Parts: sequence; structure tokens; C-alpha cells
Amino acid sequence: MSSPPATHPHADGLPRRPVNHQPLTPLWFLLRSADVFPQRRAWVHGRRSVTYAECLERCRRVASWLQAAGIRPGDTVAALLPNTPAMLECHYAVPMSGAVLNTINTRLDAATVRYILQHGGARLMLADTEYRELVEAALADIPAAERPRVLWSADSEGPAPQPIGTDYEDIAGAGTPAHGMRMPDDEWEAISLNYTSGTTGHPKGVVYHHRGAYLTAVNNQLVWEVGHYPVYLWTLPMFHCNGWCFPWTVTALGGTHVCLRRVEGDAILEAIHTRGVTHFCGAPIILATVTEAAARLTEPLPRTVRVMTAAAPPPATVIEAMQAKGFHITHVYGLTETYGPAVVCAWQEEWADLPAAEQAQRKARQGVRYPSLEGLQVMDPERLEPVPRDGAALGEVMVRGNVVMKGYLRNQEATDTAFEGEWFHTGDLAVAHPDGYIELKDRSKDIIISGGENISSIEVENALYRHPGVAAAAVVARPDAKWGETPCAFVELRNDAGPVSEAELIAFCREKLAHFKAPKTVIFGALPKTSTGKIQKFALRERARAL
Amino acid sequence: MSSPPATHPHADGLPRRPVNHQPLTPLWFLLRSADVFPQRRAWVHGRRSVTYAECLERCRRVASWLQAAGIRPGDTVAALLPNTPAMLECHYAVPMSGAVLNTINTRLDAATVRYILQHGGARLMLADTEYRELVEAALADIPAAERPRVLWSADSEGPAPQPIGTDYEDIAGAGTPAHGMRMPDDEWEAISLNYTSGTTGHPKGVVYHHRGAYLTAVNNQLVWEVGHYPVYLWTLPMFHCNGWCFPWTVTALGGTHVCLRRVEGDAILEAIHTRGVTHFCGAPIILATVTEAAARLTEPLPRTVRVMTAAAPPPATVIEAMQAKGFHITHVYGLTETYGPAVVCAWQEEWADLPAAEQAQRKARQGVRYPSLEGLQVMDPERLEPVPRDGAALGEVMVRGNVVMKGYLRNQEATDTAFEGEWFHTGDLAVAHPDGYIELKDRSKDIIISGGENISSIEVENALYRHPGVAAAAVVARPDAKWGETPCAFVELRNDAGPVSEAELIAFCREKLAHFKAPKTVIFGALPKTSTGKIQKFALRERARAL
Repeated sequence: MSSPPATHPHADGLPRRPVNHQPLTPLWFLLRSADVFPQRRAWVHGRRSVTYAECLERCRRVASWLQAAGIRPGDTVAALLPNTPAMLECHYAVPMSGAVLNTINTRLDAATVRYILQHGGARLMLADTEYRELVEAALADIPAAERPRVLWSADSEGPAPQPIGTDYEDIAGAGTPAHGMRMPDDEWEAISLNYTSGTTGHPKGVVYHHRGAYLTAVNNQLVWEVGHYPVYLWTLPMFHCNGWCFPWTVTALGGTHVCLRRVEGDAILEAIHTRGVTHFCGAPIILATVTEAAARLTEPLPRTVRVMTAAAPPPATVIEAMQAKGFHITHVYGLTETYGPAVVCAWQEEWADLPAAEQAQRKARQGVRYPSLEGLQVMDPERLEPVPRDGAALGEVMVRGNVVMKGYLRNQEATDTAFEGEWFHTGDLAVAHPDGYIELKDRSKDIIISGGENISSIEVENALYRHPGVAAAAVVARPDAKWGETPCAFVELRNDAGPVSEAELIAFCREKLAHFKAPKTVIFGALPKTSTGKIQKFALRERARAL
Repeated sequence: MSSPPATHPHADGLPRRPVNHQPLTPLWFLLRSADVFPQRRAWVHGRRSVTYAECLERCRRVASWLQAAGIRPGDTVAALLPNTPAMLECHYAVPMSGAVLNTINTRLDAATVRYILQHGGARLMLADTEYRELVEAALADIPAAERPRVLWSADSEGPAPQPIGTDYEDIAGAGTPAHGMRMPDDEWEAISLNYTSGTTGHPKGVVYHHRGAYLTAVNNQLVWEVGHYPVYLWTLPMFHCNGWCFPWTVTALGGTHVCLRRVEGDAILEAIHTRGVTHFCGAPIILATVTEAAARLTEPLPRTVRVMTAAAPPPATVIEAMQAKGFHITHVYGLTETYGPAVVCAWQEEWADLPAAEQAQRKARQGVRYPSLEGLQVMDPERLEPVPRDGAALGEVMVRGNVVMKGYLRNQEATDTAFEGEWFHTGDLAVAHPDGYIELKDRSKDIIISGGENISSIEVENALYRHPGVAAAAVVARPDAKWGETPCAFVELRNDAGPVSEAELIAFCREKLAHFKAPKTVIFGALPKTSTGKIQKFALRERARAL
């Protein structure tokens, strides 16, 4: 189809101009809530809380300080923080300074943190004092000239509340209000940078832009039917896909962010009772934690609490147990590359008439696209054609639309590969049911999802290969009731190797990797291979499942 | 603030491309609902209804027919239809053909309809057979070469169900499915054209684009907290600002559109009872109609029915009476130039503790901006500076942002005047309260709003001036319990004029204008003038209020 001619009267003399075109950005949500709901609580944390008017003022101070510290539009500012007010406010203050927010998984090892800081080009890092050791180890190997400056946050609820130099709170809580707040010139400008473990050893930097963050934030409330003034508990780490964009969704609705430093079952239940929590998100591990704690509840919840959960579907028994206590579960699916959730198992009213088991089966599917995701197909990855919607034909989940990332930072090859044929190739295998709902059948073959964290099996294999006794290694996911999956290693030892124990290899990996990435299980023996010598991971996955 | 340099790594090699950038358009909503909710009812009308799968199929057939009929991207297609399925489907089918939808107020006189058809350059018009006389009169004076082709819709629920030639239903209900559906290349492309009575005699063509229609549709559900699957009753004419963008909002949520040809109190109550209606919108006249009918109800409504109302605030007594019956009122404000509502009287939880009278006072204010409206200020129109938020200082309501129109069609001067200083000057006078809520104090001095219709006082004055006995005329709004306002004319007769009666002047105007625009009251006498001879309309408004 061709465009209308440029001289058509509907376009004539009616260009975009400031009065009728502003870059879409979630920063507007805080400006509006500070204006419309100035006295509502923006966040609570322990005994502290601030109103929306105060929250905006704090963010503007931090943005101003960043600019004074030499941060320029487009610079990267990293954050290594738990779900504290500093982490929440970063989601506004950093882009308001013009910089790009790079939140870093606090469970990573020092070498990976260093890699991310260097690859992302961070010029400044905000870090919680609890992670002092990790930060210092990560910075030690960076040449002084490239080392980011560190601004510490000694959180009142943390184990290390002693400030180190100028503290985040000194800046946010006092000092000169901002004069230099900057809104993006273009909604395509980067707002954040999220590293993801891919199928290769090095994490890739997923770039988000203002437009996508705005649209995901708005669509979260649309698909989840979030009304005004939610009380949102921060169980999902904000370092995962910017907390699925909920720092922006909740603010748009004038809601209250309930910060939570440690995600524990009792703390969650307490927040539900004392803070009036109405919504929270989390990986299935969170649901398992909550279910365990809720089992001790003798009374139902004071109100329905809505829970959004992603990744592997929660077992039907978990869903049923939680619903009996008053939790309402919504199942979503997405990836770092889609700003978090972009597919939702939308409830169809007629399912209410189905037997419970069938209902749970329907709800366990990943579902249909968010309105903000223009395309979702299960496709033959070679021919880029949809597989039949028959619940049987396996294909790769492909997506396209406004909530697909800008691309991978400084990695044109990976970007082009992921975007081949103008579809984002998720690497996840699924079927499409006759009603169009997709159901994942296998995660991308090289990724293990443990407690909501992505683990690259290749990265773990690389660590194993560095042990002198290892001849061949293959790591696959082993299903686990608590963690969802754990890394399970199959190892073939060198003929000349001395005795090597499971515990020794695990300890060896823990030295080289973030602890959660180390295998939980090691099986010794010859690895099954194809005629061309390729390890048959499929067979190993079968064995791991049967363990 | 300067832009990040083009070579910054966050931008490097990461341009917009189809995989991650699609023009925002409400057309996606129908495609998604047909895919995700194929079996849900899209609309009901009398005994007829269609599913979302069928509705998409129908719209694609119509789009295809339009293309085959020679309609090209950017062409104008007019619609003179009540709130029938044809009118609803036009909101998808016409833009899917690439054309721009120009809905026309069915209460206008033939001369104005002709003006709109010619000014808008309509190449084709869909018209309900009930308006045959009006259409023929409007077309008669258009030279044959410029005359738009007419596609008639003989609605099953209308008074003239006899088809005239090929009927809309022949195309939508059968025929070849579409092959040429076109999505916009750019979200800035026009989607519709809405004529508004301004302060000058000729209506102005307000151009909407896909982006603004999408954002208003999404924000409607956000500010009104519309959950999934609303059952929406079409009391608001779709020819007003494209029904405030609700043809798109309701579809995005998989809701059901309940068409309604005649807006009468009993029909509304019947639809609430038999159709399961949950939401409707309307000018205060609708509320008055419903209140009157509801007064005869002996039982409360079967469910809470949410009502969005705009323009002049409903009197507190009306709000209270309706709420007692089970209606929940949300008060919004906007203009044709802002896609309908863009300001909402957002409810603040603490108002619940106020006495009823004070609550009603708060709710009667116009309120705060939609999240999609980036700027709302009450300003000194000369200096473009906000007036103090003291509830007393009068200023002009100014707005800017993504839901401000593209501009006025083929009227650069009016566009530039309206957008002076990069704010849209609404012409409405208001105060800003300390909490930031705005409250209108006077409609733009030359506009009378009667039963939800804009009447240009100058247009009425021009008609009066054509009477040989009239020396001077000024028309102002007179408050009216039923219509909100009615046109009230003050007339100074020529010294040499013979006797002229009120009835004679009213009849004279009804010949020249749409009937609803003719004065309801005529007062004879010398007009108060300033020293420079300008009529003091302010003084006349005072007098009209005291009548």
C-alpha cells in the first residue's frame, strides 16, 4: 500500500508541533501524579513514606545532582540496588537527568557486574552499601580512567545502614531542587538498559526506549484491570525488565509503592495486612513462598490480592491453594526483550463453566498478546510462517510491535539475528491452540530459569570446562518444585583425571559464577552424542527430568 | 536541553524498524479483539448482533468495497448516520480503506451539510435512508462533478427500512472479503475529520490522527476504570468527536456496543435491563432524560451503571437523584479539538468524608488532565502565564499534548491562531483551585451549548441581520433546565421597521438555520454598547440569566 501523497489536504500545513505532539514517556506519569495527587503516598518503606509531591521533588534533586556531577544526555547510570526507594526513584531521576538507567541484578558475580559496567559504559553507579564487597571487587579490575564513580545508598532497612561518603539520601532528601529536568526530545531515545543472559556466555544489553516503556506501563493496567490507587508490593526485583515497567504503571494510577528489601513469605503477608496491599508480581518462586506462608493463615485475606506471575505456569495445585486464600492469579509471559510481560492469559468469561481442572489447564497457558504487542505468532522459524492452530504443531514464538526492544547495545550482529525477517525470535518453543492462545512447550534450549533468574547453560558449561578433570560438559534444566528449574550438569571426565566429586565441581563453579548459577546436581558419565559429535541435550533433558 | 549526539551507543544502529515500531492506531483493537475474543458480541442492534470475528469480516468487506469504488488513501468519506452498526463499523472500515472518516451531525441544515461535504472534499457519503430529504437538499447545489457518491444504509430499526440501490448491508453482510486492508504508514496520518461550530459562522474541520485516537481510547478506560468486557450503550452521538473515541475504547476491551437509534429515557432504561448495560456517556441533556425516566423506577438498577458526562456540570440535585438509583457519574471536559474528553474530575478518596453538598461541589468541577494530555493550565491569554491557583483568578483554559488535534483542515490561519504560543486556546474561561482542579466559569463567549450541540452565536446573529427590520442583534446563552442553554436574541429594530414579533423572527431563523440553532427567546430594545460602539454581550448575558 502506498502512502497518501504529501500534498493531501489532511496533511497540508498540519505538521507535528509542540502543542499537539510530545514524546511519549512514563516520566509524565510522575509529573501528573505530583500535580493531581500531591498528598497521596508515593512510597512507603519501613517507617518512612513520601507523598507524590515530595517524591517528584526528590527525583528532581537527584536528576539535578547527576547533571551537576557531569552526567550528560545519553550517558549510562548503573544501579545495584534492592527494591528500595532509591531504586524506585532512579526510574524517574536518572531519565530526568537525560541519562539511561542500567539496573544490575544484585545476585551476579563480580566479573559479570564488571562486564556489564564496562560494556554499558556506566559513568556513575548507585549502589546499596550491602553490596560494598561486590562493588569493590567488580571495580577493582576496571582501569581507573574508566571506573564509574559510586554513589552509595545506606538504606534505613538494610543490614549496612552506615553511609559511605555522600549518601543518596543526602541528595534526594535535601539540597537544591532541580532546575535542569530534561524530557526526551524523541520518544525513541533510550530510557534504560537491561542485561540478559542469552545463549552465549556474555550477557546482552537490551535497550528500552521511552515510547515502549510508556506503552507497557499503560497496557499493564489495561490487561490486569488495575483501577485507581493500587497498593503495589515490590516482590518482583526492579532489576528485572525495570520491574516489568510497574514503577511507571503504579505511578500513573496514583498508587502507592510498598518497597520490600527482602522477599520472604511472612514479610509479604505482613505487608498485605498492615499496608493494604492490593497487587504484586513475581516469578513462580514468589508464589511458592507465599503459598507456604499462607498455609499457616487461619483466616482469609482482608481483601482480594491480585498476583501477576510469569515464566513457567504455576502448577494447578498452587493456583487453587492461593485462590482459596483470596489471591487472584493472572498469568503472563514475556522476555527482557519485550519490556517484561507482553502476552497474557486473558480470562474468558465462559471458562467459568468449566470443571476446575480444565480451568486450571486454560489458565496455565501463556495466552494472547497485550494490545501493545502488534504481532504474536508461533512460527516455523525457517519459513517464518505460522504453524497450524491445532495445539500440537510445535514452532518458535515470534513477536513484533511497539513493545519490542530497540535492540542489543553495541551488538549489531545479535540484534540482526534476533530481528531476522522483522520478527523478534524469542527462542521459546510453543504450540498455538485453536482459540489462538499459545502454550510454551520448552524454553529456549540453552536457558535455565531458576527462581526467576535466567541462567545461560553455556556460561555454566564454560566454567565447568575450566576444571582440569572435565572432558565434556552439558548443562540442562532440572525441574524443581521450589525454584522452578535448577542447573543440572552432565560431565564426562578425562581419562587421565583423578577422582572428581560432585561437591568439588559445584564449589569450583561457585568460585567462578554467581552462586545461583552453579549446578545443583552433577551426573558423571559418557555424554550421548550425534553422529557429528554434537551433544544430544534433548536426551539429557529427559534424564534430568527423570532424576 | 540538547539532544544526545546521534553517535551515542544507545542509538547506534538501533533505528525504528517494523519489528519494533508500528504506527499507533485504534485499528489494532479490532484486529486483536477479532483474534482474541472471536466469539464475543461486538454489537447488538434490535434483534441483530454480530461477533468480533464477524464484525472484522464486515469491516474488511466495506473497506474493500470502498477501495474498489475508487477511494484512495487520504480521501474523505462522509457519514450521515445515527448510532447504528453502520456508523460504528465506519470507524474501522473507512480508515482501513485508507480514507478519512468525516461524520456529520444529523441535525444540521442542508446548507451546512453541503458546506461540510464541499469543504471536506468528501468523495463518498454513507447516509441513513431516514435523511434522504436532507441529503438530496444538500447535494442539489453541488456541481455534479464534485458531488459525492451516496451509499445508503436502510437500517432495520429505522423509520425508512426500504433500501435505495445497493445497501450498506449488501456490502457488509456479504460479498468478497477484503484483500486490501491498509494500516497507516505513519501514526500522524488523519483518521477522521470532525466539523465544529466555532466563533465564526462557518464550521471548522478538526483533523484527528491515528496516534491521538489510540491514546484517547486507552486513556478513556484508564481514567474511567473500565474493566474488561463493558456493555456500552450508544447514547452519545458518534458524530460528536467520534463518540469521544469510545468506538475504539470499547472494542479494545472486548466489550459490546449496544446501538441505539433514538435516545429516549425509556429506551435507555430498557437497554440497561435487557442488554446488561454497564456504561454510557452523554451531555447533561441525556442525564436529565434518564433522571426523568428513572424517577418512575420503583426498584434500583440491577447493577451500578457508570455514566460519563461532559460540558456544563450536572446540577448537584441531578447527580444525587441519579446516584440514589444506582448510577455512578464521572464528569469530564473537552472539546472537539481534544478528541472529546481530555480533563476529568478525578475522585479523591478523602472527599468521601465531606458533607454531600461539598462533595457535589467538588464533583461539579471540570478537574484535572487525562494522562494523555501533557499540559493543562488556566492562563492569562496575553502573557501565556498561569493564573494563581486560588479559585478566584479568571483565565483561559489552555491545553497541549498528544490529544490535541492535528489542526483545522484547509484553514492555516485558524490553526495558527488556535495554537498561538504552542498552547491550544480553548476559549473557555475558568479558575484553578488550590488543588489544581479547574472550574469553568464561562463558556467561550460566542458559543451556546444547547442539548450538547454547539451553536455559534455569530451564525445566529448573521441570520437575524438578514431580516429587513433588524438594525442590531446579539445572541447569548440563556440557562435552561432541560437543554442546558438556549439561544436568546436581543434585537434592536430599525427606526423605519414595521412591527416585528418574536414568533416571526424565530420562524425567520428556522428557515435559514438548523432548527435547534434558532433563538428560543427574542427580546426587543436598544442594545447596550461600549463607548466604541461594541455591543456589551456581558451585560446581555446577565439579563438573559435573569429572565
